Amino acid sequence: MKTSRLKNVLKHMEENKIPQLIVTSAQSIFYLTGKMIHSGERLIALYLDINGNHKFIVNKLFPIHEDLGIEIVWYDDIENPIDKLEKIVRSGEVLGIDKNLPSHFLIDLMGRNVVKAFLNSSPIIDRLRMIKDEEEIESIQKACKVTDDCFEYILGYIKPGMTEKQIAREIDDYYYKNAEGTSFDTIVASGENSSKPHAVPTDRKIQEKDIITIDMGCKYKGYCSDMTRTVFIGKEPSKEHAHVYNIVKSANEKAISIIKEGVKFSDIDKAARNLITDAGYGQYFTHRTGHSIGIEIHDFGNVSSVNDDEVKAGMIFSVEPGIYLKDNIG
Amino acid sequence: MKTSRLKNVLKHMEENKIPQLIVTSAQSIFYLTGKMIHSGERLIALYLDINGNHKFIVNKLFPIHEDLGIEIVWYDDIENPIDKLEKIVRSGEVLGIDKNLPSHFLIDLMGRNVVKAFLNSSPIIDRLRMIKDEEEIESIQKACKVTDDCFEYILGYIKPGMTEKQIAREIDDYYYKNAEGTSFDTIVASGENSSKPHAVPTDRKIQEKDIITIDMGCKYKGYCSDMTRTVFIGKEPSKEHAHVYNIVKSANEKAISIIKEGVKFSDIDKAARNLITDAGYGQYFTHRTGHSIGIEIHDFGNVSSVNDDEVKAGMIFSVEPGIYLKDNIG
Repeated sequence: MKTSRLKNVLKHMEENKIPQLIVTSAQSIFYLTGKMIHSGERLIALYLDINGNHKFIVNKLFPIHEDLGIEIVWYDDIENPIDKLEKIVRSGEVLGIDKNLPSHFLIDLMGRNVVKAFLNSSPIIDRLRMIKDEEEIESIQKACKVTDDCFEYILGYIKPGMTEKQIAREIDDYYYKNAEGTSFDTIVASGENSSKPHAVPTDRKIQEKDIITIDMGCKYKGYCSDMTRTVFIGKEPSKEHAHVYNIVKSANEKAISIIKEGVKFSDIDKAARNLITDAGYGQYFTHRTGHSIGIEIHDFGNVSSVNDDEVKAGMIFSVEPGIYLKDNIG
Repeated sequence: MKTSRLKNVLKHMEENKIPQLIVTSAQSIFYLTGKMIHSGERLIALYLDINGNHKFIVNKLFPIHEDLGIEIVWYDDIENPIDKLEKIVRSGEVLGIDKNLPSHFLIDLMGRNVVKAFLNSSPIIDRLRMIKDEEEIESIQKACKVTDDCFEYILGYIKPGMTEKQIAREIDDYYYKNAEGTSFDTIVASGENSSKPHAVPTDRKIQEKDIITIDMGCKYKGYCSDMTRTVFIGKEPSKEHAHVYNIVKSANEKAISIIKEGVKFSDIDKAARNLITDAGYGQYFTHRTGHSIGIEIHDFGNVSSVNDDEVKAGMIFSVEPGIYLKDNIG
């Protein structure tokens, strides 16, 4: 167990009067144990108890060879892990649960009437995960470095006639060779495809004068990078394309320029959004300005108009405003 | 909308006295609409109503250009989709929800006190999805064909000195070129690594006389294939390896031989398990015998000792018993 992180969680449980909770997010379990288990639809649950009686419920299919410093309760494919959990939780008390716990486990547990009430206790760990420690920052810096290098490499690689898929696969290959693979599905969207915010790479061939939006990121020691770049093919972009590009670039720079401790996330969003709106493109900026990045590509915490939380030292998040002109460019 | 599938769902809703439900699984939404939306942590919800007042709640970030024959209710990143849902559901009635709906949405919805009760209604669609129609069977057959071809190709490709990662990437590349990519993370586990049921490819180099377990599958038109094979490097496996291999092969063949309409899944599991147990390796067969395959690599329905459901025509599932000897082979 990562003892200082666990200690922080227990402190916040005490403050929030949550005597016991289960962590079921693979990423939060990795954060607290150092062990990443991709268990798919099979439940893994870290039970944390204010009295220190912690347990870790794991399917036998995912053996753990190292000593994690916590008692492991094993179950197999013909057992229901909720039966195990029912015996572990203290009855008559509140139980904190993870926000993404699949509802069928919650409904099953509710039906047993052992727990007094259920609370979404994810904010405790999610908020702690927002402030990265030195080890985490190093991993993300390394993931960003590989991404910068990959981008430089791919700029030399792209040639008219290649398909979006081919370029995306080349990025993926680079990441598998130089890091732990991608942190999300690589986006390479060219020409009119770039106008779709979450495009999937197609067989469209890159043409002269194309605009290409690339969204790419990798993982290093379990931590993510995330970078969006727009590039032009050929000597010079058209006036309209250059105009839109420069507005987004200015919005990005403006938002970044105001970031310091104590600034609200909503104000960072506003800085980017106002600039784009003043330029007449407000309606084409259809998403939040950014998101936290960490063990997950979308860590808890949005750079959006409805998040008035303040920026603190150690936070890592993206600033990625955009303009998407339907059937034209993005 | 896939109207005949929708009609079946509505019929089962009526029979099960579920007047309204929300489908939030991307795969079940694809099954019913033909549209796959990878929305990550953002909610997409297909609201189905016994009175026909269906709605589809989607984040604006995932634009839908085709006419799906259903009214779409859009929300953006600064709106809470549960606010939309609250206005759509009929108050005072039961609401069916998907088994994997993240708990925080359920807790939010529960707090609003509009619905009489919540029910896990996934079994309705999950059970319908177990019986594949012609179009689905064709897609899976094609995915299996690509996987067979890929396996043949990779047999010629593997050479001592290559790493597990390199082989896994070659399989992935094959799938990206000839299908829609992988249906799950490719497993290439050699030597002692093969003794881990869910191994991740490492930098271990293939050696002469290695045993290699390969678990691989691709997607075609949204449908999955899944194949596990164990291969030996060199002229001949050791006696012990050949012995274990042949037990697993016999268990696989025995289980397959009894499959016909009306047979219980638990009996298929028993056929494989008894053979392995009789051979003295029962304790090393640590997982269920198989699982349904479809839009998801693990579709609803296990081939396990606790599933007494009967096999019906149109079902597609894996039969994959195994023996894992710790720190030795698998």
